[in-house]
Amino acid sequence: MMTADVLVIGGSAGGILTATTAKKVYPEKKVVLVRKSKTVMVPCGIPYIFGTLKDAAKNRIPDAMLANAGVELVVDEVVKIDKEKKTAFLSGGEAISYEKLILATGSLPIIPRFIGGCDLENVFAVFKEEEYLTNLLNKLENMNDVVVIGGGFIGVEFAEQLSMAGKKVTLVEAAQHCLWQAFDDNISSIVEQEMEEHGIAVRTCEKVKKLAGNGVVEAVELESGEKIKADAVILSIGVKANSVLAAEMGIKTNESGAVLVDEYMRTSENDVFAVGDCAEKRCFFTNKNVPILLASTAAMEAKVAATNLYGLKYVRENRGIISAFSTKVFSKTVAAAGITERRAMEETFEIVAGKFSTMDKHPGSLPGTNKLDVTLLFAKTSGVLVGAQICGGECAGEMINILSLAVQKGITANELNTFQVATHPLLTSSPIAYPINAASLDALVKMK
Amino acid sequence: MMTADVLVIGGSAGGILTATTAKKVYPEKKVVLVRKSKTVMVPCGIPYIFGTLKDAAKNRIPDAMLANAGVELVVDEVVKIDKEKKTAFLSGGEAISYEKLILATGSLPIIPRFIGGCDLENVFAVFKEEEYLTNLLNKLENMNDVVVIGGGFIGVEFAEQLSMAGKKVTLVEAAQHCLWQAFDDNISSIVEQEMEEHGIAVRTCEKVKKLAGNGVVEAVELESGEKIKADAVILSIGVKANSVLAAEMGIKTNESGAVLVDEYMRTSENDVFAVGDCAEKRCFFTNKNVPILLASTAAMEAKVAATNLYGLKYVRENRGIISAFSTKVFSKTVAAAGITERRAMEETFEIVAGKFSTMDKHPGSLPGTNKLDVTLLFAKTSGVLVGAQICGGECAGEMINILSLAVQKGITANELNTFQVATHPLLTSSPIAYPINAASLDALVKMK
Repeated sequence: MMTADVLVIGGSAGGILTATTAKKVYPEKKVVLVRKSKTVMVPCGIPYIFGTLKDAAKNRIPDAMLANAGVELVVDEVVKIDKEKKTAFLSGGEAISYEKLILATGSLPIIPRFIGGCDLENVFAVFKEEEYLTNLLNKLENMNDVVVIGGGFIGVEFAEQLSMAGKKVTLVEAAQHCLWQAFDDNISSIVEQEMEEHGIAVRTCEKVKKLAGNGVVEAVELESGEKIKADAVILSIGVKANSVLAAEMGIKTNESGAVLVDEYMRTSENDVFAVGDCAEKRCFFTNKNVPILLASTAAMEAKVAATNLYGLKYVRENRGIISAFSTKVFSKTVAAAGITERRAMEETFEIVAGKFSTMDKHPGSLPGTNKLDVTLLFAKTSGVLVGAQICGGECAGEMINILSLAVQKGITANELNTFQVATHPLLTSSPIAYPINAASLDALVKMK
Repeated sequence: MMTADVLVIGGSAGGILTATTAKKVYPEKKVVLVRKSKTVMVPCGIPYIFGTLKDAAKNRIPDAMLANAGVELVVDEVVKIDKEKKTAFLSGGEAISYEKLILATGSLPIIPRFIGGCDLENVFAVFKEEEYLTNLLNKLENMNDVVVIGGGFIGVEFAEQLSMAGKKVTLVEAAQHCLWQAFDDNISSIVEQEMEEHGIAVRTCEKVKKLAGNGVVEAVELESGEKIKADAVILSIGVKANSVLAAEMGIKTNESGAVLVDEYMRTSENDVFAVGDCAEKRCFFTNKNVPILLASTAAMEAKVAATNLYGLKYVRENRGIISAFSTKVFSKTVAAAGITERRAMEETFEIVAGKFSTMDKHPGSLPGTNKLDVTLLFAKTSGVLVGAQICGGECAGEMINILSLAVQKGITANELNTFQVATHPLLTSSPIAYPINAASLDALVKMK
């Protein structure tokens, strides 16, 4: 029998970072990571296999990360865990004992069986295995009409990349807008317009009635009656926690199957932790269960768990998921942190929105300058930042993290009005018009 | 006589933002801005006139900013102020009365008269007037050998831009490294190497003995004996506060001539404020007088002054200058906030450095990926962030502002270890290797 001190099950973002962090904080411990597949895909990189990268192998997370950190890798499937004996059994019958077990078993794509025709050929969910994705890439090569069902981040990014690869793409979203969980309507509309200008047909407020075809998919029929030709269909309507192992061990899960965890990612079972998509997520603002499954969230949870495996060393400094997102759709970068105006209304937060638009370089005559729109949502009475949304050029990708930090630390409009920033002509907006400062002042004046 | 409620003297970053902010916070007040020159240059954009822009007119701050905000602009020189009568007199004899006066008279380049030959033809300091810069651009057009004296930000940026414009450039810096006030030696060395790889001759630890020539400059002679051919010389050894008007009014200044101000930018004279380069700067960490004159600092001070002109409405949320910088030299973006390791040692701060290197996109196979190195300096006992330095691609320009905020709010390594970020393949490092999180963990482990 193999002996581990720290055993991590699952080889994606949450698993890797738990293992490498554990080894850094507890160098004397033997850390073993077991995963099923020979290679691991960068989860958020998957859409880019189909346009920019054109090769699934280019989207691998290098195993050197584990090796360099001193983590032992076992490629095999854990089929059973004996929690009394603290032992995991592999598909070949071998066993690994552990002191601390971390479940990082991730999530699986939801396949909407209630829609007829999901089992037709050339209907694809977005599984994360390299072989599956290579096969999908090859199959799509000779296809022209692709329908993407689901306008979340993965759906929008698939639509963009397939369109860039020359396909005729239709994106179908049941809600009023794409990306509605992350953004308010104005930014969603900009993204939709950007897609349409690049030839993607966007169908929002449209439910799929069925996928039609004879063995092989041929069309997507909407409830509105529209029939869209489809050589292939990509299903991107979401994922659900993969908690089979946890459930078999008798670990408590919630109604949607996610593993229940405390502030330090500890499950109901002693010495067993869960991180990433398989663990329940709670909202930073309300402590409600929220379905926000992100690699960046998994990474934060991995660090919380790994640093505190043998006693609580590093006090957790965040209360829950703040929902920090970014993406780039053709020339537009959009990013958000915290709650949207829509969510704020639903939860009855009284908010004041501060807005500012400027250019992302200065002077604006510099090549590559983009318009930059920043909206900041502050709680009306306390002035605390509760949400932020940005639309602009690529600098929005890190600018949102200023605001993500500010939300997490409860920073106020008054503080953000005059916080000191580094500015540079080629890199940022003008100091006279730095949009976080300026949008904060806009909110302060409205609060008066 | 013209009547103003709020009178701002000076039309660069500090003056503009004081005027527009005052009008936003006090819409009922008449705000007038007086400036000498017909147009205003983006101060930090000046080097880019000589390479990227090739036209000083493209580097103007648009007057629309003032007009749109409802600020009245007067182009004239204030020659005298009667503080008893609260009246400013213009060069033509006209007068403007005020309730609140803001001095935003900026700075002037230091011309090192102790170096012989500074008055030779084709020796240029970096004045900020459009006409002067247009003339400089035209003169340089037919010149080949240019020596830049002073390796601060302006010097380095001039050297880069003139080199990109095809000139043979030598950069002379008396200190051991270029950009030594902002960065520790490792990053300065990277910038120097980048310049040398692009054909710029970098001479550090070299003092200038004299500028040689017969009426017109021909060479720069170093104390080491080296003689460098020079068709033109750019002097960029720093600036000094322009406080003539303040001194004439009897307002208190410090030994280097900067106007003394309190936390709210109030001078020793009732109802008179000073912002920007003409006002004294104090260090965030030590409260010592520091010579850090930046447009972004002027902008912060402008907002502090303008929001509090008629009574202290918005409590100042920063203690002093934290020195937040960024620049791009050829393909390298470098950025810093807070104190360097060198400054920390001088001040006897006990610090722990957390370091992490990664790529700025994920997977690293994506086109346009750059290496990203982050160093975070934490106070050893409290764990509070006191400094940060980044070298990487353009995302460093906003990433430094996350750290600038963290320094200003006294955020600790424990907090930054698990703070939640938005990540995206095309926009940021991988969530598994987000460098602020990772460098914080590196410091935490070293603190144990």
